[in-house]
Amino acid sequence: MNAPELNAPETTSVANLDKPQDEADWRPWERLAELVDSGDGEGLEDYLSNLSASDQALSLSRLDEEHHTAVLTLLPAEEAAEVLRHLSETQAAELVDGLEAADAAAIVHEMSSDEQADLLGDLDDEQAESILQALPPEEAASVRELAAYSDDQAGGLLVREILRFNQKSLVHEVITTLSENAEEFRDYDVQYAYLTDDDGKLVGVLPMRNLLFARRTDPVADIMILDPLSITASMPLDELRDFFDAHHFLGVPVVDDQNKLLGVVHRNAVDYESTRAAESDFLKSQGIIGEELRTMPLWLRSRRRLSWLSINILLNIGAAAVIAVFQETLSQVIALAVFLPIISDMSGCSGNQAVAVSMRELSLGLVRPTEMLLVWMKEVSVGLINGTVLGLLVAIVAVIWNGNPYLGLVVGFALCANTLIAVSIGGTVPLLLKRFGFDPAVASGPLLTTVTDMCGFFLVLGMATVLLERLV
Amino acid sequence: MNAPELNAPETTSVANLDKPQDEADWRPWERLAELVDSGDGEGLEDYLSNLSASDQALSLSRLDEEHHTAVLTLLPAEEAAEVLRHLSETQAAELVDGLEAADAAAIVHEMSSDEQADLLGDLDDEQAESILQALPPEEAASVRELAAYSDDQAGGLLVREILRFNQKSLVHEVITTLSENAEEFRDYDVQYAYLTDDDGKLVGVLPMRNLLFARRTDPVADIMILDPLSITASMPLDELRDFFDAHHFLGVPVVDDQNKLLGVVHRNAVDYESTRAAESDFLKSQGIIGEELRTMPLWLRSRRRLSWLSINILLNIGAAAVIAVFQETLSQVIALAVFLPIISDMSGCSGNQAVAVSMRELSLGLVRPTEMLLVWMKEVSVGLINGTVLGLLVAIVAVIWNGNPYLGLVVGFALCANTLIAVSIGGTVPLLLKRFGFDPAVASGPLLTTVTDMCGFFLVLGMATVLLERLV
Repeated sequence: MNAPELNAPETTSVANLDKPQDEADWRPWERLAELVDSGDGEGLEDYLSNLSASDQALSLSRLDEEHHTAVLTLLPAEEAAEVLRHLSETQAAELVDGLEAADAAAIVHEMSSDEQADLLGDLDDEQAESILQALPPEEAASVRELAAYSDDQAGGLLVREILRFNQKSLVHEVITTLSENAEEFRDYDVQYAYLTDDDGKLVGVLPMRNLLFARRTDPVADIMILDPLSITASMPLDELRDFFDAHHFLGVPVVDDQNKLLGVVHRNAVDYESTRAAESDFLKSQGIIGEELRTMPLWLRSRRRLSWLSINILLNIGAAAVIAVFQETLSQVIALAVFLPIISDMSGCSGNQAVAVSMRELSLGLVRPTEMLLVWMKEVSVGLINGTVLGLLVAIVAVIWNGNPYLGLVVGFALCANTLIAVSIGGTVPLLLKRFGFDPAVASGPLLTTVTDMCGFFLVLGMATVLLERLV
Repeated sequence: MNAPELNAPETTSVANLDKPQDEADWRPWERLAELVDSGDGEGLEDYLSNLSASDQALSLSRLDEEHHTAVLTLLPAEEAAEVLRHLSETQAAELVDGLEAADAAAIVHEMSSDEQADLLGDLDDEQAESILQALPPEEAASVRELAAYSDDQAGGLLVREILRFNQKSLVHEVITTLSENAEEFRDYDVQYAYLTDDDGKLVGVLPMRNLLFARRTDPVADIMILDPLSITASMPLDELRDFFDAHHFLGVPVVDDQNKLLGVVHRNAVDYESTRAAESDFLKSQGIIGEELRTMPLWLRSRRRLSWLSINILLNIGAAAVIAVFQETLSQVIALAVFLPIISDMSGCSGNQAVAVSMRELSLGLVRPTEMLLVWMKEVSVGLINGTVLGLLVAIVAVIWNGNPYLGLVVGFALCANTLIAVSIGGTVPLLLKRFGFDPAVASGPLLTTVTDMCGFFLVLGMATVLLERLV
């Protein structure tokens, strides 16, 4: 998450990876398992460091549980932390859940404060507690404090590993400290140092390059930026995004209500969480709640998917009840049954397009959750055109196939009208859900398809009942 | 995109925004239009700079076309570039497309090279060409060169605005240059400088903090990192992600095939493009190809959505043909018609879950496009459990409602079997599409629903035909 590390010449040699011509035949996890079995920690470290991040992720996911955890314990804690850093959070949590608490604590100790908070939040509660017990008390207290914030708040993203000096320090003192602790600071973001008063309250920010141009006997307070912008630990992710959009900073200091400096949130961390949020919205809209990897236990994957499916099937059965009501009509004009799934599917497609555009406009701030009327008017015009085109198309197909123009009229009109309904609901439901604090990514889809199915079936079968004499 | 700018005390005063208590009543775009009408450039600049990024985006999207472009021409070019920077790329392109080429060129001139390439790529070809004509020839040539790369390649993301010195420079010369050009360099990423030989070939990277500890009369070559890692302009986005996952750099130098330094790709730019890619996958999976904003012209929005819908309706009609084949059976057991849409929808849900997990595992590198068998086995087990549960549920509903246990058998078994088929297809199709160079986000959905609909209808109606005597 945090910062720069430009090491001595590093070559991405792949010589010792034994990568065959055809990548499909390459199974680096087998070599990993061999190295683990032979207890060759150094060889393991070497081999892993030559794998790309995604090859590391792939290989670790392919090891069985035993080798899984053995890899992390064989590596030096610092290297193990590095490996976890390259994995998705779900996968990292899976691995650490399998470790002894003491081993896990040694690795957690090597992480930056935001990584610690992230990881502990993703673990089993029991394992997280054991790890906290095994950490030095002061560190554990600090992790607990940050773990109280979620990933989408400043407190969950802040790092405590920053350059922090008293404002009374002199320029040459700061330079000496930097040079003496070069090794430790190597992993920090060294663009800025943060200056506090004797009570730890934030008083200024010091761009490091200012040190270049300063007299060495001056106090750093002379070259700092006074009253810098700062934020509180409770600031939510979307405001953080706004903040970094508006300001070209690489990081922003976080203070408590007494203006005491807690740490820094880096732009990178905000970008990373935003990507995660976007990916998670996609998964949720497809019914994957709680990120799934295929390496997870079968019952867990099945149960999570089922929780979504069982709600959907109940809603579906509810919608199908409309068909049951009109069984009499349907039995007389059996051709209608061919068109019911078409109307259901197509309305779903049109509605989902409107949902996707609303979700995007909400996330860009281009529409406010209260502006339902505006969105509705924009959707109605598109719905009218698209509904007419689709309705005509399905009407023509019906007439060609069945020969009865009234069948074409019924299904064509129903599809047209239902497209209008679908885009109206699809466009406005995300705004409504957002306004009342629900997650639009999860709930928009099922709500949409249930209502559009009901309306679609009702339109087709209701009209058919009225025109029954012409259809038979 | 690029870097730091910690200005003098800046307060986010909202005093002059006239923001009412109820945000829904607040229409900053009306105030913007007033300022534009009165030609008050300074007032406009002041008002805009006090709006948050999303309020800027919102307000600009709500202005009519005339005021739209007038805002950008009234602002100083540098401020206009800043405003565009906060907008989504679609919206920025919309605005610039409406400008006179000369006005647009003045704004483009103020952008960094990656922003220029991005924007020009999103414009109408004609407008882009006019702007290039209006730019200084040298700058235009440089933009053209970068515009040849797409957004998901290093060449499309690189910035040329970097600190670049000859390796023979002395430490004090570099410090003097930095201090004399502090204003220009303020917007650069000043973590590193890049050192070249007389031919412009990259020879080293200089972490700026090393300047702090160096003797001022030494050549910078003494404190640089030799043979730094570098990449070529054609490196694709997923390799860039891998690269930044594996290395904690904030940026990486880009060289041509003679090792001449072209520029730097920053981690931020890669993160930003990754977020865009994830958002775009979500939109594409919902049938929004080519990002849509509701401020776009009606015919464009309608046409883009229709191109997706018309393919889907043809596929849907194809699937429904299966029902038509079994009309005879259906007319004798009309109750079946109630269950056809349920089976179609539920199979779609199950299949989409498998699609979403595959897309995610592909993007994390946890599965290779060739490993279809592995994915299939993982899906079959989940599909078996979930199919059984869903099948039992729908069977029970059928029996309770209709009283005929054979109806329950037919619809329950069909749903169970079709869930298996749906997860098998949903899990493997993204791998197959990816392997053959298609975009899994676009094509997975329609392919999936068509095949599962066909199979589902065939299973229900085929079994019913066989068991017809028991069902009537």
